[in-house]
Amino acid sequence: MPTRFGFDLVAADGAARCGRLRLAHGDVDTPAFMPVGTRGAVRAVTVDEIESLGAEIVLANTYHLHLRPGDDLIARRGGLHAFMGWTRPILTDSGGYQIFSLATRRTLDEHGVVFRSHLDGAEHQLTPESAVDIQARLGSDVAMMLDECPSWPAEPEETEAVVLRTLRWARRGRDRFLALETGSHADVARSTPGQAQFGIVQGGTDKGWRDRSVAGTLAVGFEAYAIGGLSVGEPVDTMYDIVAHTADQLPADRPRYLMGTGAPDDLLESVARGIDLFDCVLPTRNARNGQLFTRSGPMSIKNAQYAEDDRPIDPACRCPTCARHSRAYLRYLFVAGEMNAATLNTLHNLYFYLDTMREIREAIKFGTFEKFRKAFLETYSRPAHPLA
Amino acid sequence: MPTRFGFDLVAADGAARCGRLRLAHGDVDTPAFMPVGTRGAVRAVTVDEIESLGAEIVLANTYHLHLRPGDDLIARRGGLHAFMGWTRPILTDSGGYQIFSLATRRTLDEHGVVFRSHLDGAEHQLTPESAVDIQARLGSDVAMMLDECPSWPAEPEETEAVVLRTLRWARRGRDRFLALETGSHADVARSTPGQAQFGIVQGGTDKGWRDRSVAGTLAVGFEAYAIGGLSVGEPVDTMYDIVAHTADQLPADRPRYLMGTGAPDDLLESVARGIDLFDCVLPTRNARNGQLFTRSGPMSIKNAQYAEDDRPIDPACRCPTCARHSRAYLRYLFVAGEMNAATLNTLHNLYFYLDTMREIREAIKFGTFEKFRKAFLETYSRPAHPLA
Repeated sequence: MPTRFGFDLVAADGAARCGRLRLAHGDVDTPAFMPVGTRGAVRAVTVDEIESLGAEIVLANTYHLHLRPGDDLIARRGGLHAFMGWTRPILTDSGGYQIFSLATRRTLDEHGVVFRSHLDGAEHQLTPESAVDIQARLGSDVAMMLDECPSWPAEPEETEAVVLRTLRWARRGRDRFLALETGSHADVARSTPGQAQFGIVQGGTDKGWRDRSVAGTLAVGFEAYAIGGLSVGEPVDTMYDIVAHTADQLPADRPRYLMGTGAPDDLLESVARGIDLFDCVLPTRNARNGQLFTRSGPMSIKNAQYAEDDRPIDPACRCPTCARHSRAYLRYLFVAGEMNAATLNTLHNLYFYLDTMREIREAIKFGTFEKFRKAFLETYSRPAHPLA
Repeated sequence: MPTRFGFDLVAADGAARCGRLRLAHGDVDTPAFMPVGTRGAVRAVTVDEIESLGAEIVLANTYHLHLRPGDDLIARRGGLHAFMGWTRPILTDSGGYQIFSLATRRTLDEHGVVFRSHLDGAEHQLTPESAVDIQARLGSDVAMMLDECPSWPAEPEETEAVVLRTLRWARRGRDRFLALETGSHADVARSTPGQAQFGIVQGGTDKGWRDRSVAGTLAVGFEAYAIGGLSVGEPVDTMYDIVAHTADQLPADRPRYLMGTGAPDDLLESVARGIDLFDCVLPTRNARNGQLFTRSGPMSIKNAQYAEDDRPIDPACRCPTCARHSRAYLRYLFVAGEMNAATLNTLHNLYFYLDTMREIREAIKFGTFEKFRKAFLETYSRPAHPLA
């Protein structure tokens, strides 16, 4: 069965766009933020809670699920949606990023990557083809092609090698995806008929290589395109510049996905440059470390100054945590090491991200995006250092 | 202000009773199970979730809250209800049990107990009077008197000493409680006007000393009475025998609270012997260890046999976990160490306990309690060994 992918542009305001993404398990209003459910679960919150917060799509990690419980086991359950009990869309990454950041004894060649599991040291191989097969078994709505993830800063020769190999892998990955779609590999379970596949543009902070990567990836042809290889340590202005430069060359009638970014102001600035989809561990990971996002910027709930502060995290916030609990209680739970500190903080941070995206969509529809952006950035204090 | 305590008997079936307990923050249908929120939070679940499960009262631990964040700080927040964001009734224990089980370098004399905090080693003192003051500041609906908690098995002389000292402490604790009620210690904040105080019967497994303890505690006079010093290692039949013997002597027009018990069949057997109130860490603690309660008995979700089991924990269960998730997913989350394994397991176990109590109340009202009891015990397999 062919992809059920579709994308309708609803409104635009400058380069910022508001759209509706149609996927096998439902629609997603864009710009959208995807909470990260690394191991088939968004850490510290339940599927009921993610639904209540209004998330329309979540991301899950192919690397983790392939190693445990295994994509075969998940396919026998009917796919990741049935396994997780989540009925809305899922995007899976290709597994490449985790191989480069988590796995040990990694060797990469033209064929693919051989690595050892961070769980038990067992040897595994991932190729452009097997990344497609694994994600077919998982049955995500959107599968990502396998790309090579370079470190930053990169030497020019490294950037060249990464871009060119990623393009060859794009061709192989797309061929495999189309072959599965036409049923020529009946031994590979496809848990979600109508899955889409997104290509990934690399090229680091070099505009020339970004251009080459865009052209080559478009020539292969995917349902949509992602920008990879950013948020890896480069200055934020460089990132914004590369995002603007790259997004501008991607087709206007397809969603553009900026992988692994970022802080709330990064999302806003990237929407302003034409990005439609985001994922990031910041709201969930930082919640577990006691960092809470507000319209004034992040705050650390463990600070002693909150010990007797009876106000909610943000008096204007309508999340379930702010509806019921004070800073004093949340600070106490965090300091005492209570498990639901992580839950309550995660609910707040995810709500903040999802609600900010809702406000951004409304602003684009009403043609007031620039005003919203200016007001947001005037209020929001970005920490001088990378977020904990 | 005098206590707002009240208790109406709604129905009886043999020794089993169905009632309505009226407390400062609302009513509680009995027999009732109180989820344990040791540190002012039921571990791994939110206050929203506890409400949704239908809990009408929770228990919180005086020892833990006194040490951190401190009852003074909680009183300045307006009491534990405001601090936790929980609007329904709360019962606080006296702190005695934790001093005997957690604190180090404990010395006990007639005046009270001096102990060192398990958190930082700081020296603290708890007396029958200070236990009242601390719980007044916490503002629970029900405060428990300070008792001495003996070990099991106990020598006859130890049982005698415990019972007699506990009776002297009962008098002192009640005097202090009544003095606070009449406003003669205005320096002690009373966060909940209308708080009630329960006495505690000791006496181990010796019926003679139980009788003496009942008579002495009734002579002091409390809003209601608890049976302490059971579920400490004695054989289950001995516990049932002592429960029956003791409950029978407690006033019929007051609720009877069996402290710290127990497994689901223990609750049923104790209701059959006239008990109205329970608390126990089993459903919450065992959930975090992967043990799930069902009508057939407990199951260990980590077992490999559940790896590909697509059924819910209990197909007949209407809890949020069973509504959405399979044994396969829950087993995977537990094995992977995902935090929400604890949450989903806790939701199921608390629902099972609360729902069993609902069924018990219905059966008593309809005069079918014995039939329900027989059917439950025929299906329910109690593990041969104490639950993990």
